[in-house]
Amino acid sequence: MGRTAFFVSDGTGITAETLGNSLLSQFEGIPFRRVTIPYIDTAEKAAAAVARINTATQEDGASAIVFDTIVNVDIRDAISRAQGYMVDVFATFLKPLEQQLGVESSYTVGKCHSINEFSRYHRRIESVNYALDNDDGGRQQQYDKADIILVGVSRCGKTPTCLYMALQFGVHAANYPLTMDDLVNPGLPDILMQHKKKIYGLTIDPFQLSAIRHERRANSQYSSLSQCELEVREAEKRFKAEGITFINTTTFSIEEIATRIMDDVGLDRRQL
Amino acid sequence: MGRTAFFVSDGTGITAETLGNSLLSQFEGIPFRRVTIPYIDTAEKAAAAVARINTATQEDGASAIVFDTIVNVDIRDAISRAQGYMVDVFATFLKPLEQQLGVESSYTVGKCHSINEFSRYHRRIESVNYALDNDDGGRQQQYDKADIILVGVSRCGKTPTCLYMALQFGVHAANYPLTMDDLVNPGLPDILMQHKKKIYGLTIDPFQLSAIRHERRANSQYSSLSQCELEVREAEKRFKAEGITFINTTTFSIEEIATRIMDDVGLDRRQL
Repeated sequence: MGRTAFFVSDGTGITAETLGNSLLSQFEGIPFRRVTIPYIDTAEKAAAAVARINTATQEDGASAIVFDTIVNVDIRDAISRAQGYMVDVFATFLKPLEQQLGVESSYTVGKCHSINEFSRYHRRIESVNYALDNDDGGRQQQYDKADIILVGVSRCGKTPTCLYMALQFGVHAANYPLTMDDLVNPGLPDILMQHKKKIYGLTIDPFQLSAIRHERRANSQYSSLSQCELEVREAEKRFKAEGITFINTTTFSIEEIATRIMDDVGLDRRQL
Repeated sequence: MGRTAFFVSDGTGITAETLGNSLLSQFEGIPFRRVTIPYIDTAEKAAAAVARINTATQEDGASAIVFDTIVNVDIRDAISRAQGYMVDVFATFLKPLEQQLGVESSYTVGKCHSINEFSRYHRRIESVNYALDNDDGGRQQQYDKADIILVGVSRCGKTPTCLYMALQFGVHAANYPLTMDDLVNPGLPDILMQHKKKIYGLTIDPFQLSAIRHERRANSQYSSLSQCELEVREAEKRFKAEGITFINTTTFSIEEIATRIMDDVGLDRRQL
């Protein structure tokens, strides 16, 4: 039972994977095996990919689904002769787009990621460094340069969200952990209130928080459910009292948390 | 002059953006303004999106290009009435896929990122923590748990690549900086040779390295071209002598570096 899905590309395969996974996720009942084959840029590599697709089709007893974003015509032709169901992404959309735009497209391998590469790379590296320097309340004197400051209790998802925002969007994302030292006092720390407009709260279900903390420090006060409940309650109370927008991360992926925050505060996704 | 491209979604918009940018990058001559509108999940938000599309079309004097990955039929219909050229991603591919798979798709909003969410989230967080703990040569006793150990001179791209691998693929990626302390000795440090199979080298053009280091410490010995040339030459010499595969990061995006390394060493991209 089950089917195999291939994501085949002459570049990284990220476009084929992203689109393909979105489409496959609409078919809940079917267990797909997923195989990404990037950098298919020679006839030899294409032949090897075809062999893998044919084997999967034979073993599954049903056509493999092949999402392909190959721009080179010869290699695309070779792949299309495999025993699989082809979802030819570029061919499907590029011809109509050429008509609409009134120009021919340049079938250049991996074009997508080579535009303006140095400045984009540079900006991302710089943003990752910023996130690392300003992780966990470090270097609060750099909050002037922050695009956003995520605030929440330990292990509620601040660091991965900041790093994702830096890598994906080139945003300067700092984060500040609310510890018991903060939560025994009323209100929020002065350093945060000085940058109140940039603050965004994260919260989490105490059960999940306890499970996550348990991985880090098993059977500790820190990971106990009562401690997690206390911290989450006190943090949320302060967000509400100060009118700070916050998001519950429990059921969201990192992409979703980051996207929702950017959307909420109107941060431009195209800093890169 | 120029055209506006919209990426419209009832989810994060990542699929629409990724596909749309890949397609637009095939049209080099045209300067596109790019606007992402995520979370269009009500009639009101759809109407606001339509208004933005219409305004762009009027201001550009040419149809906006609209990449849409909306699964809700009513909202998709509303968007399709905008004055723009619609690239309807799901409608184009889902119907043929339903036929091929012999089942109907579930038009569930944001389905893609909610599958198996907790374990995926958990694995990514754990991998990000691993990358942070094992950044810059930290905790070398954890190298047993590494899937890969990136080695190279300071500022050649190790940290962003490790973090990307952790976030995107859930891989345990450590990194070790080759400093002058290492490079005055012959060969590579013992700790690396003990894990030789997991080692992958990064190198970089000395001019670019100098520019990047200059941002961090201007006009220092550290950022001087002569120092960068020396370190890069000595690092590459050791990679070659020990038969360690390495990649020159100068002209690659972080996605490309990460993907090429994973492909080279045969690491599974689907750990999540």
